[in-house]
Amino acid sequence: MTYCVGLKIERGLVFMSDTRTNAGIDSISTFRKMHVWERPGERVVVLMSAGNLATTQNVISLLNGRAKPLEERKAAVLETPSMYQTAKLIGDTVKEVIHDSSPAGQKADSYFNASFILGGQIRGSEPRLFMIYPEGNFIESTDDTPFFQVGETKYGKPIIVRTYDRAMSFAEAVKLLIVSFDSTLRSNLSVGLPLDLLFYEANKYKVGVQKRIGQDDPYYRTVSEGWSDALKNAFKSLPDFPEK
Amino acid sequence: MTYCVGLKIERGLVFMSDTRTNAGIDSISTFRKMHVWERPGERVVVLMSAGNLATTQNVISLLNGRAKPLEERKAAVLETPSMYQTAKLIGDTVKEVIHDSSPAGQKADSYFNASFILGGQIRGSEPRLFMIYPEGNFIESTDDTPFFQVGETKYGKPIIVRTYDRAMSFAEAVKLLIVSFDSTLRSNLSVGLPLDLLFYEANKYKVGVQKRIGQDDPYYRTVSEGWSDALKNAFKSLPDFPEK
Repeated sequence: MTYCVGLKIERGLVFMSDTRTNAGIDSISTFRKMHVWERPGERVVVLMSAGNLATTQNVISLLNGRAKPLEERKAAVLETPSMYQTAKLIGDTVKEVIHDSSPAGQKADSYFNASFILGGQIRGSEPRLFMIYPEGNFIESTDDTPFFQVGETKYGKPIIVRTYDRAMSFAEAVKLLIVSFDSTLRSNLSVGLPLDLLFYEANKYKVGVQKRIGQDDPYYRTVSEGWSDALKNAFKSLPDFPEK
Repeated sequence: MTYCVGLKIERGLVFMSDTRTNAGIDSISTFRKMHVWERPGERVVVLMSAGNLATTQNVISLLNGRAKPLEERKAAVLETPSMYQTAKLIGDTVKEVIHDSSPAGQKADSYFNASFILGGQIRGSEPRLFMIYPEGNFIESTDDTPFFQVGETKYGKPIIVRTYDRAMSFAEAVKLLIVSFDSTLRSNLSVGLPLDLLFYEANKYKVGVQKRIGQDDPYYRTVSEGWSDALKNAFKSLPDFPEK
């Protein structure tokens, strides 16, 4: 499995992804699921993937132009005129890769499926956040739904729903994502450390914070351990059921 | 979908189930998923079900002896010598019903599947809690895994994992289950109010508290509304990510 979250706040975009890939419970590897393209001063594009690893790696390779001779290679996602066009390019690439992998062609329930969260900003437009489906189509975040999750989304969703606030700072947003990831890590073995974190601050056109967070990261440990106690105290603060 | 939890604490067994049944998002009904058999002074048996409604209703009917002429009917679950035998009886009944419904016979991924949580106590033995699978086999709770969930289990699991304590009171256990159900209700439309609650106190051989909890229940509202605030305060109590 996998867990990735892209979160839009007033101050920018925050991305977090785990790194565990598994083919069965007895075959576990570490692969980066967060890919970043940057042309400082003009654009930042971040893509996170969940699903079949052969599919997602192939999509990234094609986006990097690896299908072309070495001298003609360039990252197509750095050439698109808008984030919408970037989403369309990635959607088309995903569709093509899955179609080529599947003997019976593109299908919604294909074994080769993959989903993506795309976010970033190109000069002349606002920061934007998209979810791209295996069928190649996509949706964009709105104020009503300011975040997207892919992979093992359920364990970590309630805390996002209850504490997200679009005015929150980057530092609060990271705390929120770490709590959400910690709940998921504790419940699903196929989501694993280390985590990749990226913050893009609106209208900067360069990557802000980018960090890999492992088991020994002191802030991760503080939040992971502190959250259990904080939750127990929150639970204690509510009245018990009146037995009468 | 459905959400049911059976929780074993030192003081006894606590059960909670939702009541929503759906055949597609546009066809929603209310059905009780908690069934209770009681012979005061001798045994209490509680069964909660998730899955295909035709299957679960048929299982309950067979357990109540409805396949027999009126004068011969008796609830078979009131005649078993032990909770283990009760689990075996229910497992065999589930297997039979699913087999009869499926053109290709019993299969793990059948459309007619159903899972059950069984709990109770028969004089001469401890209170016991089982999970019964569509294949008719079953597992029993232990100190390591003192609760079972069926249906939409993921949203409401982290809070149980983090705050369960076998020494907790019935009143605390109900609070825990309401928080867990509230998180699930907010995330999955196919889990719905009202909730059925039952508490069986160890060695009493009669049902303790049994209650239906609806939208207007004052305690439910207190916990549901209070939990968002308590969670936000817990979140605030942790340090923000150090941006440096």
